[in-house]
Amino acid sequence: MQKNQIVFHPIGYVRTKASKDEIKSNKKNVISKLVLNREFMTALDGIDEFSHLFIIFYLHKIKGKIDLKVNPMGKVDLPLIGLFSTRTAHRPNPIGLTLVRLLKREKNNLFVAGLDAFDRTPILDIKPFDPIDTITEFKIPGWLNRILNNKYEQPSNILNSFNFES
Amino acid sequence: MQKNQIVFHPIGYVRTKASKDEIKSNKKNVISKLVLNREFMTALDGIDEFSHLFIIFYLHKIKGKIDLKVNPMGKVDLPLIGLFSTRTAHRPNPIGLTLVRLLKREKNNLFVAGLDAFDRTPILDIKPFDPIDTITEFKIPGWLNRILNNKYEQPSNILNSFNFES
Repeated sequence: MQKNQIVFHPIGYVRTKASKDEIKSNKKNVISKLVLNREFMTALDGIDEFSHLFIIFYLHKIKGKIDLKVNPMGKVDLPLIGLFSTRTAHRPNPIGLTLVRLLKREKNNLFVAGLDAFDRTPILDIKPFDPIDTITEFKIPGWLNRILNNKYEQPSNILNSFNFES
Repeated sequence: MQKNQIVFHPIGYVRTKASKDEIKSNKKNVISKLVLNREFMTALDGIDEFSHLFIIFYLHKIKGKIDLKVNPMGKVDLPLIGLFSTRTAHRPNPIGLTLVRLLKREKNNLFVAGLDAFDRTPILDIKPFDPIDTITEFKIPGWLNRILNNKYEQPSNILNSFNFES
């Protein structure tokens, strides 16, 4: 094994019928089923007492070299900044992190809303949201503030779109 | 390479003078220096416009088999629940996730407050905190609510303890 290698294995996989375009454009409305390996079924006991979870996943479609500086979301009218100042998927370790809403647990499956992971994405970890993960006062760059102000003009309707068939 | 292996490499390491006991008992007051590999220095450009970051790290001290059901924080008076319903470090993939406050960037180094990672912990990824990671309405189990009510009686004083010498 090469020096400094860190090796993980998927605990399960994401299943979703949402297209890549749907996932990229409005992830809050995307419903996904997280199918955990059956050996981990009892490791989910008690999870439905949480409304929200962090999903840590492997961005398995990302290949090739990364750029140290990027335009956020590929928008050339946004400043060229360091990749760690963005959520770009093209990172030294292609790890995704998303806060999702837990809709339902069924045995080794979790149904969640808001996951921006493509179908068949390997899941690395699931952590319950804890108030320690929340902050109400924070500073973000002006470019991000402007994007969010535009985005939040569109109302989301997660509940209306919840008719996922497993 | 074994089937389904996912291989990462550290982007840098945590340096801290805080003891393991200090880190475990009151992480909010812990100051750490994140030393990134020099090749990633420019990948940090613009990061100091964010006040908070998520640090994803490798829990490199965790060895041995895991229990699918655990008592949160090892407290036997708390319910025995699935490991994914807790933040236990003994997970199938030993990945840590912590929201920290960014105090200062210097070249390839970040000084942060609130990281519960021991000295020399390998860092996997750094992601800026985005308001999309915040929720103001959420549900947590009763056992966690009771713990948090006790914990938050102690005032934190991060700023007073900021005299980290690099």
